[in-house]
Amino acid sequence: MRQLDYFFNPKSVAIIGASHKPEKLGYVIFTNFLGNISERKVYPVNPDTTPILGQKVYRSILQIPDDIDLAVIIIPAKVVPKILKDCVTKEVKAVIIVSGGFSETGEEGKKLEIKLKHIIEGSQTRVMGPNCLGVFDPYTKVDSLFLPRDRLKRPRLGNIGYISQSGSVGSTIIDWLAEEHVGISKFISYENGMDVNECDLIEYLADDKRTKVITVFLEGVIDGKRFIKVSKKASKKKPIIILKGGRSITGARAVASHTGALAGSTKIYSAVFKQTGLIETRSWEELFDCAEAFSTQPLPKGDRIVIVTDGGGFGVLATDWCERQGLQLPEPSEELKKKIRKHIPAYGSLHNPIDLTGDVTSERYKIIMEECLKSKEYDGIIAITLFQVPTLNSDIVDVIGDMKKFNKPILCCSAGGDFSQKISKALERKGIPVFETPQRVVKAMAALVEYKRWLSKS
Amino acid sequence: MRQLDYFFNPKSVAIIGASHKPEKLGYVIFTNFLGNISERKVYPVNPDTTPILGQKVYRSILQIPDDIDLAVIIIPAKVVPKILKDCVTKEVKAVIIVSGGFSETGEEGKKLEIKLKHIIEGSQTRVMGPNCLGVFDPYTKVDSLFLPRDRLKRPRLGNIGYISQSGSVGSTIIDWLAEEHVGISKFISYENGMDVNECDLIEYLADDKRTKVITVFLEGVIDGKRFIKVSKKASKKKPIIILKGGRSITGARAVASHTGALAGSTKIYSAVFKQTGLIETRSWEELFDCAEAFSTQPLPKGDRIVIVTDGGGFGVLATDWCERQGLQLPEPSEELKKKIRKHIPAYGSLHNPIDLTGDVTSERYKIIMEECLKSKEYDGIIAITLFQVPTLNSDIVDVIGDMKKFNKPILCCSAGGDFSQKISKALERKGIPVFETPQRVVKAMAALVEYKRWLSKS
Repeated sequence: MRQLDYFFNPKSVAIIGASHKPEKLGYVIFTNFLGNISERKVYPVNPDTTPILGQKVYRSILQIPDDIDLAVIIIPAKVVPKILKDCVTKEVKAVIIVSGGFSETGEEGKKLEIKLKHIIEGSQTRVMGPNCLGVFDPYTKVDSLFLPRDRLKRPRLGNIGYISQSGSVGSTIIDWLAEEHVGISKFISYENGMDVNECDLIEYLADDKRTKVITVFLEGVIDGKRFIKVSKKASKKKPIIILKGGRSITGARAVASHTGALAGSTKIYSAVFKQTGLIETRSWEELFDCAEAFSTQPLPKGDRIVIVTDGGGFGVLATDWCERQGLQLPEPSEELKKKIRKHIPAYGSLHNPIDLTGDVTSERYKIIMEECLKSKEYDGIIAITLFQVPTLNSDIVDVIGDMKKFNKPILCCSAGGDFSQKISKALERKGIPVFETPQRVVKAMAALVEYKRWLSKS
Repeated sequence: MRQLDYFFNPKSVAIIGASHKPEKLGYVIFTNFLGNISERKVYPVNPDTTPILGQKVYRSILQIPDDIDLAVIIIPAKVVPKILKDCVTKEVKAVIIVSGGFSETGEEGKKLEIKLKHIIEGSQTRVMGPNCLGVFDPYTKVDSLFLPRDRLKRPRLGNIGYISQSGSVGSTIIDWLAEEHVGISKFISYENGMDVNECDLIEYLADDKRTKVITVFLEGVIDGKRFIKVSKKASKKKPIIILKGGRSITGARAVASHTGALAGSTKIYSAVFKQTGLIETRSWEELFDCAEAFSTQPLPKGDRIVIVTDGGGFGVLATDWCERQGLQLPEPSEELKKKIRKHIPAYGSLHNPIDLTGDVTSERYKIIMEECLKSKEYDGIIAITLFQVPTLNSDIVDVIGDMKKFNKPILCCSAGGDFSQKISKALERKGIPVFETPQRVVKAMAALVEYKRWLSKS
């Protein structure tokens, strides 16, 4: 077992600061663990030893008659050093410090955090946080998020690993992913990163079998040299997509009062990401758009993309973004045109985008897409599928889903109301992601191409 | 009555190509008009005079015993010239040609379109299209969209005017707006623009009392000089937000086979938009994000923005985008800090972003936002309201809605699942738009600031 495993699959957990009051964070976290895995023992710790939900409460972690793999600490900052000492004495393997009030608050807090560092020095105890949400693992049901489940849903099982330096960015997106039915392998919010930091976590997820793609929201890096080394190695194993907060000067100042990290120069960061094969995005939407593409699609062999569309204007917008993102849109060869010409009406277009027009049928999508995928002319397809046209039946879902057999990336773009969204969801259940705007679908395809290039170069 | 009024509020309508078969476009369009306004007469025209849905069918428009304000033509391209001649003879005021097969298909089609132009020369008949969707007006219920309502919803009454050169971009967004409960004043898809074009429509909406903000999706401009003149004048009356398709070289080629327009140089277009006070956006999401802001908010006096947030990471991301968009984020003055300090916990932040932290209450939002709005230090607020935090009650909707009394723009940012979306919707019903990402909320605020600057300059 690797040391960080204890954060994600502990046999025994102590909740230090487990509360009797349902509105308290310590109550939410305790109930997250309660009875979700029968083999796991959960011990509430609180100076008030009145039972919580019928469970015996311990005055101190030292009194628990069992080894503890994971302790979650949610108590006022000033008491944390004493409690962390107890954890070290107890030889706890992993500690998540949820409590805030450390380096993010200024000089006093910084001193307190350094004190914590000294406490664990030389011990076997690893610490996540402080000032963090900790871990959510849908496979092992570890869940130290203090946000109640009726307010913040948890995503389903999946293969996207998600590391966030920010709890708010982390948890908000977790809720959004759950709503969008996107699955994850692990979520980690490590915030101040006094011990376990982005380098440890990238390294860990790079070797995690359940994780196919790693997403990172980063505000600053503590050890630049190690970050470069770790990222370079990890990005050869699987794609790593990154969003950097604090890119602007005022943003960097905001980072300082948020996690206490040094945001550093934007240009340096972008250069480092490029050099180490990390895929940089500009918003959290883009971060997870790209993640969905990697999560579900094979890598393209090259950058030759074909756009098929039933809406000319959407085709035009996608074309604009392909050029911006450096994707090639070669015209179909005369041979390919000959094959598809008779299936496209005269008012359509045989160029690239191939315009199937607003009276498209599922059959037309099928023939054109199959011919393009079978040909050696294209490495991937962007299919714009505006489902509102009256001639399109719901068998379009099976038609496009079936294209996966060609083992080339297929990404769809569609938008609209109820009717359209229902078909999009069905398509996503078949493993074809659907994006709302041309900009977003193109960026996701470009990420696949960029990563393939990186792998070929390195 | 201005001439274009007949497109939007006709007393009598002929549907030429009204069909007996429910799957046909001509049937959908006919039923859109049927019985929705009792004072309006609707006449189906078809060589097969079997009644449609009990309505008498006319062999030709010339046989209708009534004046016709609006004719909608949905018949094969080659028959259109003859029918348009009939319309001119009948002195029809406004004609929407839905049929495709004209300049968008190449040389032959171009000739046919020129023929149409000659037919209406010197007459009082104005033509929209060909190859277009035509008009949807939620106030007068004119609806020539051939997309069935169970597939494509229609938006509610509102004050956003929407001109689209593309039917697919137009209709897809119409469906999306309906889903998002965003109201519009008028929607027009004019596509090939052989007669009525973007200039006529911008001019018309600039004087339309129900339209507060104009949105335009444009692929190319036919008369550049007039466009500049019209835009300059119109943008002094109300904000005009624009998305240009075919900005790239390959995109321009795609435009040619879509609407037959010349896409022109990107740089020239962007320069023209700037010079005429048009607000340019990069995606259709941005287009309507900005429109929602103008639709609901007063203009800011200047560019001094304050961000209040309950999530540090979201605050950092918003800060980055403010700098990119040229918005100022001044620190609160010592005087203002003194007023708000005691309401923010020590682990929060009194800089800008003001970090209210994850244990924020509605009361805290109320006090801080009110102090900021009352002060003379800020021209607008970006409120990041991550509703998942356990301490926040649903009265946050009333608290923020109530801030409108200060007459400064307030835009919110929130994301997540069910719970969070429900509160966002409630807030939007109070007239405060909520955006999913920091990038989007900042762009919308920047558009307000940009337009205010344009008004002050010109």
